[in-house]
Formats: sequence, C-alpha cells, structure tokens
Amino acid sequence: MVKLVAIYRKPENVEEFDQHYNNVHAPLAAKMPGLIKLEVNKIYGAPMGESDLHLIAEMYFENKEDLTNSLSSPEGRAAGKDLMGFAGKLVSMHFAEVL
Amino acid sequence: MVKLVAIYRKPENVEEFDQHYNNVHAPLAAKMPGLIKLEVNKIYGAPMGESDLHLIAEMYFENKEDLTNSLSSPEGRAAGKDLMGFAGKLVSMHFAEVL
Repeated sequence: MVKLVAIYRKPENVEEFDQHYNNVHAPLAAKMPGLIKLEVNKIYGAPMGESDLHLIAEMYFENKEDLTNSLSSPEGRAAGKDLMGFAGKLVSMHFAEVL
Repeated sequence: MVKLVAIYRKPENVEEFDQHYNNVHAPLAAKMPGLIKLEVNKIYGAPMGESDLHLIAEMYFENKEDLTNSLSSPEGRAAGKDLMGFAGKLVSMHFAEVL
C-alpha cells in the first residue's frame, strides 16, 4: 500500500481554506482513479509548543504505479491544478510506502 | 480517533537512523499505553522535485485524552526521551484528529 501525503501549513484565513478544501478540493481528489481511501487529519496541537500545520491528507493507493497513473490522469491533473491555485504556498506533497 | 504524527526530515546517515528507529525507537513507541496502531510511512519521492522527508510515523489512539495520558506515562516519557536523543533535530510532532 502507498499513499500520496499532502501536508498543509496553517493558512492565514482558516475558514476560507476549509470551505475551499471541503467543497471543492476534496471532491476533486475523491475522483482520482485508483484511490482506495482519502483520510483527512486535522491538526489540533503539538506535544511541545504549537504546530505550524493545519491538515495532513492521505490518499491511499494499491501500489506505486497506480499512484503515478492517477496523478497523470485527467482527474489527477484537475485536482493538482486546483491544489496549486488555493494552497500552492501552503502545501508539500510526498509519496510514501506503508511499511 | 486521533493520531500522534511524527514527521522526520531526511537524516544525514539514513542507515544509522533506520537501525535506531527500527531496533530501539519503534519498540519503545509500541509500548505506549492506549496505542491502537503504529503506522510507519517511508517517503520514496514527491510529485514535484525531491521530498525533504524520510518517514512519517502515525500513532493511533481512541481519543485526545488517551493520547495525552499516554505521552505523560512512563512509557511515553521513555519514548520521548529516546526520540529527542536520536532525532531531536529532524522530527516535528503533531496532534491530529481523523475527520
């Protein structure tokens, strides 16, 4: 199992971000072919000090090939384009293998 | 469900880090009371450029209180002390609620 992990730093306007994320971006991401599960984690604190993060979204795929193909599909490109538009400066994206 | 998320940047010596993580740290973390699941994600790339991350470890707990209590338990403190010793400069820790 592999994941596409999106780590979002805290936005200036949380309400605006959450509205776009929930009403536009998550539905686009949910259409990506081969997606097994989308798990969204809302950061609420940190053991020491404050967290600089707002959300971590994890998209599960069966294997590396499925993930790569999904990103280059029309649905994957639409989700990526939307992401860059509303969160390009806040997000970092990573490919992860579940050990 | 909540998670304690540990995000590790790439270490200088990956082999040494992995040995300590697998043989010392993960067994200490696994002893934390109330832990439901420890999921370790090994970063293998990024959609654009290179990822600066090495691992994301997710420790699942039933609720926020269980997580807080576990961190302040003797087992939680032992895991925290070990973490600061081998990865204090590489890791960031976050509390997350699974939406």
